[in-house]
Amino acid sequence: MALYVQKFGGTSVGSVERIEGVADKIQAFRAAGHDIVVVVSAMSGETNRLIALAHQITEEPSPREMDALVSTGEQVTIALLSMALNKRGCPARSYTGWQVRIKTDSAHTKARIQDIDVENMKADLAEGRVVVVAGFQGVDDDGNITTLGRGGSDTTGVALAAALKADECQIYTDVDGVYTTDPRVVPKAQRMSKITFEEMLEMASLGSKVLQIRSVEFAGKYNVPLRVLSTFQDGPGTLITFEDENKMEQPVISGIAFNRDESKLTVMGVPDIPGVASRILGPVSAANIEVDMIVQNISEEGNTDFTFTINRTDFKRVKEILMRVADDLGAREVRGDDKIAKVSIVGVGMRSHAGVASRMFDALAAESINIQLISTSEIKVSVVIEEKYLELAVRALHTAFGLDAVEETN
Amino acid sequence: MALYVQKFGGTSVGSVERIEGVADKIQAFRAAGHDIVVVVSAMSGETNRLIALAHQITEEPSPREMDALVSTGEQVTIALLSMALNKRGCPARSYTGWQVRIKTDSAHTKARIQDIDVENMKADLAEGRVVVVAGFQGVDDDGNITTLGRGGSDTTGVALAAALKADECQIYTDVDGVYTTDPRVVPKAQRMSKITFEEMLEMASLGSKVLQIRSVEFAGKYNVPLRVLSTFQDGPGTLITFEDENKMEQPVISGIAFNRDESKLTVMGVPDIPGVASRILGPVSAANIEVDMIVQNISEEGNTDFTFTINRTDFKRVKEILMRVADDLGAREVRGDDKIAKVSIVGVGMRSHAGVASRMFDALAAESINIQLISTSEIKVSVVIEEKYLELAVRALHTAFGLDAVEETN
Repeated sequence: MALYVQKFGGTSVGSVERIEGVADKIQAFRAAGHDIVVVVSAMSGETNRLIALAHQITEEPSPREMDALVSTGEQVTIALLSMALNKRGCPARSYTGWQVRIKTDSAHTKARIQDIDVENMKADLAEGRVVVVAGFQGVDDDGNITTLGRGGSDTTGVALAAALKADECQIYTDVDGVYTTDPRVVPKAQRMSKITFEEMLEMASLGSKVLQIRSVEFAGKYNVPLRVLSTFQDGPGTLITFEDENKMEQPVISGIAFNRDESKLTVMGVPDIPGVASRILGPVSAANIEVDMIVQNISEEGNTDFTFTINRTDFKRVKEILMRVADDLGAREVRGDDKIAKVSIVGVGMRSHAGVASRMFDALAAESINIQLISTSEIKVSVVIEEKYLELAVRALHTAFGLDAVEETN
Repeated sequence: MALYVQKFGGTSVGSVERIEGVADKIQAFRAAGHDIVVVVSAMSGETNRLIALAHQITEEPSPREMDALVSTGEQVTIALLSMALNKRGCPARSYTGWQVRIKTDSAHTKARIQDIDVENMKADLAEGRVVVVAGFQGVDDDGNITTLGRGGSDTTGVALAAALKADECQIYTDVDGVYTTDPRVVPKAQRMSKITFEEMLEMASLGSKVLQIRSVEFAGKYNVPLRVLSTFQDGPGTLITFEDENKMEQPVISGIAFNRDESKLTVMGVPDIPGVASRILGPVSAANIEVDMIVQNISEEGNTDFTFTINRTDFKRVKEILMRVADDLGAREVRGDDKIAKVSIVGVGMRSHAGVASRMFDALAAESINIQLISTSEIKVSVVIEEKYLELAVRALHTAFGLDAVEETN
C-alpha cells in the first residue's frame, strides 16, 4: 500500500482512446491496493489550439486572460479521465488548480506554487477515490487563475507529491526511462534504473528532454523520489534519487548527453582588462539570447580571445551584435562557427575519480576528433567538436566509459 | 450613463471575427459613457463538441464531471473577448462563475442560482473596466463547478442584472426583436417595440424561441427590464416590461404564436367520474412525456371524451400507453391525429375586452378553417386546427387583429 502521484502528459491523454488506456493503468494500481493522485496535462494539441485563437485576436494577449484561456485545456482532461474511471467502477473526482487549491504567486503564465491545500484530496483518498488534478495551473490570492508555464504539469505532480508526502511521483511519458545516451545514436545505450538528481539536472539541461528541469529541482528540494516511466509499455522506468551514500558502487560516468543546435562565436584579441566580459555579453543578454558555454583562455601580450556558445537559431543576430561590440572594444576580429556540437559526460562518480577528463580526451583523440572548446563542472565535462563527428564521438565515449549494453546470449 | 448587462449567445461569439464584432459593439457603449457587464455563452458548436467527447467515454457521465467539462466552453469565450476588448484600449476582466462568485445549489447540469457576490464586479466597474462573465455556470457551497442547463446564459444575464440593479438586461440574439408572429409565415409581421412579461411567457412557451422561459420568469420576479436585440444589425429591439399602467393604449392582441409539432389523442367514451383524468394522464407523465393542452367536454349519458395534445415525436408511444389505459377504464376507443397545429393569440389587452375569442373564431370561419380544440387562459386563446391550414390561419388572424405592417409609401 503506497501513495503514488502519477503524472500523464499531453501525448498520454491525447485522445479519448488514450484517456481510456490511462484509466486502465490507474485502475490496475488501485486494484493492487495503492492510493492514487493523478495529474494530467491538456490533450496534445489543445493548448496550441487555444493559443492560436488568442493570437488571432492579438499578438500580445493580457497574461491574466491567457491563463484563463489555456487553463481550460487541463480542465477538459480531468473531467474526461474522471468519467472514464467512474465508468470502470473506480470512483474518481476531478479538481482544477483553484479547487485543490494550488496557491501560486500572481506571475501570470509563469507562476510559482506557494502552497497546496491537501484536505480535500486526503478526504477523497480516505474514501477510496482516485483524485484527478489539473496540472500546470493554480490560483493566486485574489482568485485569479494562473499557469506555471510550459511543462508545468510535471511541477504540479512533484508539488502534490511533496505536499501529500507521497511515496513516489511517477512521471509517465512516451519513453520508458532515462538512457545512458540517445538510443537512436548509440543502439547499445541502456536504460538506467537509477540516476541522481544532480546528474538528471545536467542531463536535462544538456538536451535529454525527458523531464522539465524545474520539476527536477523541485523534487530535489523537497526530497520527492521521482520515477520516469512509459505510458505505452510496462516496465520499472528510471528512479531519480538523492545521491547514494555508497559512492563506490556508482559507475564513474552515468550518461552521455549531447546537443546539436549549438553555434560558437569568438571575439579575438580583446584587451585583457576587467569589465570586458560584461561589455561583450551585456548586449547579448539584453537581446534576450541565452548563452550556454563561456570560455576565456589566458592572455597573450595583454590580449585574449573570448568565446561562447549559443543556440544556432540566434547565430546571425548575435554575430551582428558582436561586430558592433568588437569595434567599440578595439578587438581584432569576430569569428563564428555554426556547424558545431556539444558532447558531455555526466556522473556524480567523477568527483572522486581523477583522470575522467583525460580518458574522455583520449577516446576522442583515438578517433582523430579535434576538441575546440572544453568546459567542466563538478559532475560533467563538456566539449565542443565539429558537428559531423557528433555520432562518432558519442559512440566512442559510450564504449570508453563502459556503458554499452552486453549482448544477450541464450 | 446607465449600467447595462449585455448577454451574447453562442452564435454571436461563434468565431474570432464575431468576438471582435461584439468587442466593437461593447466599445461603442463604453464610449457613450455606459457601464457594461457582459455575459457570454460558449462559441457555437463548442458545447456540443465537449458533450460528444464525454459520450465517447460513457453514455452516462457523472453530472459533476459533465459540469467541469462543459463549463470550459464559456471560459474560453470570456478570455478571448477580454483580450479583444483590452486590445481596443477598453480595459476588461474575465470572470468564471466561481470567480464572480455565482453561488448555486448542487443540482449538477440544472443548478439554480442562489446568490451572487457583486463586490468584485462593482470594484471593476468603478475603475472603468468592462466585466466579462461566463454564462451558464456557477459554483456550489462545496466548491464544485455547476451549470444551469441549456440556455442558462440568459438566466445568468438576468440574475446579474438583478444583483447589480442594472438599468437593463440586453439579450443579443440573431433576431432583431420579438415579432407579432413569424415573419417567414406572415411577411407583414412587425417587430414589437414593447411586450409584457406575461405575454412573452405565453409567446415563449408557444414556440417563439427568442428567450428561455426561465430567464423571463426570473426577470419578472426581480423586476429586471429585459431587451431583445440583434447582434448583427443595429436597432432598438423589443423591450420586455412589466404590465403597463395604462392598459387603454395597448392593442388587444400583441402577437400570434403557433406550433407545428403537435399531435392530439382522444380517449372516447370514458366514464365521467372523479379520478379518470389522473388515471389517463398518470401513465403518460410517468413516461416523462409533457402534455400541452388538455380538453374535456361536458358528459353525455355519463360518458365523456378526454383529449390532450403532445409533441408529435411522442405520438406513437403515448398511443400505446392509452390503448392499455382505455382497456382498464372500459373506454370505447382511442383516436389520434398527428397532423395538427396549434395557433394562439396572445395579449394582456384581451383581459378587458370581451369578444376577442369570437373575433378569432370568425376570422378562421371566414377561411373555412375548422377548429378542433379550444383552450384559453387569461391572456391567450389557443385553437388546434388541421396542420395544412396553419399558414392561412396565422395570416388571417394577423390581419383580423390589425397587426399587419402598413406598407411604406414614398
